[in-house]
Amino acid sequence: MSALSVNHLLGIKYLTSDDIDLIFETADQFKEVINRPIKKVPSLRDITVANLFFENSTRTKLSFELAEKRLSADIINFSAAQSSVKKGETLIDTVNNILSMKVDMVVMRHPNPGACVFLSKHISATIINAGDGAHEHPTQALLDSYSIKEKLGTVNGKKVVIVGDILHSRVALSNIYALQKQGAEVMVCGPKTLLPKYISSLGVQVETNLLKALNWCDVANMLRVQNERMEVNYFPSTREYAQQYGVSREILNKLDKEIVIMHPGPINRGVEITSDVADSQHSIILNQVENGVAVRMAVIYLLASKIKH
Amino acid sequence: MSALSVNHLLGIKYLTSDDIDLIFETADQFKEVINRPIKKVPSLRDITVANLFFENSTRTKLSFELAEKRLSADIINFSAAQSSVKKGETLIDTVNNILSMKVDMVVMRHPNPGACVFLSKHISATIINAGDGAHEHPTQALLDSYSIKEKLGTVNGKKVVIVGDILHSRVALSNIYALQKQGAEVMVCGPKTLLPKYISSLGVQVETNLLKALNWCDVANMLRVQNERMEVNYFPSTREYAQQYGVSREILNKLDKEIVIMHPGPINRGVEITSDVADSQHSIILNQVENGVAVRMAVIYLLASKIKH
Amino acid sequence: MSALSVNHLLGIKYLTSDDIDLIFETADQFKEVINRPIKKVPSLRDITVANLFFENSTRTKLSFELAEKRLSADIINFSAAQSSVKKGETLIDTVNNILSMKVDMVVMRHPNPGACVFLSKHISATIINAGDGAHEHPTQALLDSYSIKEKLGTVNGKKVVIVGDILHSRVALSNIYALQKQGAEVMVCGPKTLLPKYISSLGVQVETNLLKALNWCDVANMLRVQNERMEVNYFPSTREYAQQYGVSREILNKLDKEIVIMHPGPINRGVEITSDVADSQHSIILNQVENGVAVRMAVIYLLASKIKH
Repeated sequence: MSALSVNHLLGIKYLTSDDIDLIFETADQFKEVINRPIKKVPSLRDITVANLFFENSTRTKLSFELAEKRLSADIINFSAAQSSVKKGETLIDTVNNILSMKVDMVVMRHPNPGACVFLSKHISATIINAGDGAHEHPTQALLDSYSIKEKLGTVNGKKVVIVGDILHSRVALSNIYALQKQGAEVMVCGPKTLLPKYISSLGVQVETNLLKALNWCDVANMLRVQNERMEVNYFPSTREYAQQYGVSREILNKLDKEIVIMHPGPINRGVEITSDVADSQHSIILNQVENGVAVRMAVIYLLASKIKH
Repeated sequence: MSALSVNHLLGIKYLTSDDIDLIFETADQFKEVINRPIKKVPSLRDITVANLFFENSTRTKLSFELAEKRLSADIINFSAAQSSVKKGETLIDTVNNILSMKVDMVVMRHPNPGACVFLSKHISATIINAGDGAHEHPTQALLDSYSIKEKLGTVNGKKVVIVGDILHSRVALSNIYALQKQGAEVMVCGPKTLLPKYISSLGVQVETNLLKALNWCDVANMLRVQNERMEVNYFPSTREYAQQYGVSREILNKLDKEIVIMHPGPINRGVEITSDVADSQHSIILNQVENGVAVRMAVIYLLASKIKH
Repeated sequence: MSALSVNHLLGIKYLTSDDIDLIFETADQFKEVINRPIKKVPSLRDITVANLFFENSTRTKLSFELAEKRLSADIINFSAAQSSVKKGETLIDTVNNILSMKVDMVVMRHPNPGACVFLSKHISATIINAGDGAHEHPTQALLDSYSIKEKLGTVNGKKVVIVGDILHSRVALSNIYALQKQGAEVMVCGPKTLLPKYISSLGVQVETNLLKALNWCDVANMLRVQNERMEVNYFPSTREYAQQYGVSREILNKLDKEIVIMHPGPINRGVEITSDVADSQHSIILNQVENGVAVRMAVIYLLASKIKH
């Protein structure tokens, strides 16, 4: 097969496992490109991409922008802080205005879950979800799975635990979908206050003890803790969170095997992960970042080829 | 003729009707370009444009940036929020500094009426006014007239009413000049508190009753209402404004003809225009946005060719 | 010789006088390039530069960006205001993340003295210091010396006085190093409260009387006064500063010779320099800005050629 089954990347939920395979094969090729001296291909000279960020997201935005530049696309950037959104314009009007300027593809980060799906029903351009509230963040999940596959040879049959603030995380849900579609077993681990009620209905295991979770898994994906959420509603303090749910050299030494440590960034060193672990051979954190550009190039490229035909 | 009579676009006031014709003929060609798969021409590889926005303006800025990119110009962006302006530097020094970096053309949005004219007397680069306070916004007026011509075949002899907050609008004044130079009849319509005293001296008709204005016109250009201005000084409430000066399906049904509805955006749906009208066949709002890129390409291209010779 | 002795530009302190000569010879060639109609060379198509500004600096950022564009490098911009830095990420993690996206060179402005040197010990990319607190601002010093050489034929043997707020200036220290390495004599002049205690240990003359300083020098580099610093701790008022340390036509008329006036910008007209002097033949302020682009192109080009081999 040589085309995606979808015209947008709204969420991992809508992808087939063949789609994921195709994205990964394409990403392999782009990963070669970005490791050459000349890191660019002229593939998308005829595509204009608008990056619409209704919420700040430095690293996701940089990664998408670089992916677009490496593909030679034209780029326009729109961030809510400078926008007409404040003036009472609707989302559809804002986007339709931008599309009228002959934009082919929209990469959108939005605080509201479902904003991308909603938009896809009302506009004609290709949409890539760069994170919609606590809902999905599909390119993050793809780069995470791609990085696991690169490290372990396959995702199929692997045991992956996602640790931390599952409740507020868009990374968790997309990762669960992506891992399950590729045949991995998934567990979530965290304090009960940070696990959503519906989580067991997704077919994942639930564990509140970190040592048990790490003993079970091949890979631990450590989610970022937002300090401002601790202490108020969800956990006594950041320090106590770190003691119970942070990965340290000490806890890794208690395991009878090697596990892979991932983190979507930015890291709170000393909270969800200690410095020695973050910088160890276990960690593939910077590989994730590198793979992010290649995977996003693949997604943009494959969706663009659906526009042209 | 093949050259503009001016070296800057400071305001419509300074253009001849031949200038406007030339801009529209050139825009026709660029409109073809931006509707091709490859939407770019290499025309201005030797031109560097600085976009100096001393006031926020997302859509105007995006439109200019895209126009510059489609022409292959080099671009630098400067916005007041990040600028030395706060450090007490004069406008002329700020601009001269940027020009010393070998910039050929300045696109400037500034809160002060007359800022572009002032600047043109002190600096050597080509200046395009992207809006100076409540004074002029010439590229908006050009794209508005271009869109009327595209829809109705000509501007000459047409009756155009500009509805709303004429007092605070830079769009109104530039439109009045542009329409009159092309032989249109112009009316302004709004509550007396939002009509400037000098308005009748410009040779336009003045009407405070919307139904009468719509019955008279071929085209209604609905200006944006700034909610924060209602209620305080100018009108009892936004809701009452909408009842008296908003265009709805209901009021259009009372007319014995079809009229064209325009809006410079961003739209307050339900205030100056109802949703069904905004999205109807009457409306050419998104055409205006599309034409904005082509018209701005034409202006930049024609002014750049005066630099080179 | 055809290569720099260093792999980073962390400060003038680390450059040899041969390095400075090589940068200036290379800048001569790029100055020709940026004065051509097509101001671009394809030299750095294989280089990606990240501009990391952890502090605002409009003109330095624009100058670097233009230099990078003229060299055809790929550019990503990162500013602290939108960044993960706020989320508690360490500087090294932030930069390593960006480097994992295959960035070759980092141009960094940071509020902390020594931030660039610190970073150079922990990351693999080439670093250019675009100002680190009150420590160094090496490209400013290079463009200043280049501008003196352009005006007077040489820096060697010239007498240069740096006037104003030496205590808080990153420009002063880098200029002292650069001028001394090229054989100039350096004096600093300002009120005692704005002269750091260690200054005489740097081998410069110290003078608190402006007329005496100007009578001594060939070149006066007038530093910017930050109004908010006056009145509080350092000087009775901005007005009194202007009377004692501002350069005016009046004071220049008291000299028995012509001197060259420089300023790193942005100028406070009427404070450190009067308008008639700023705009006179004495002033090379706008030449400094123009040369800034050429000198930065030279630095980037020479450091990039060390990456490739």
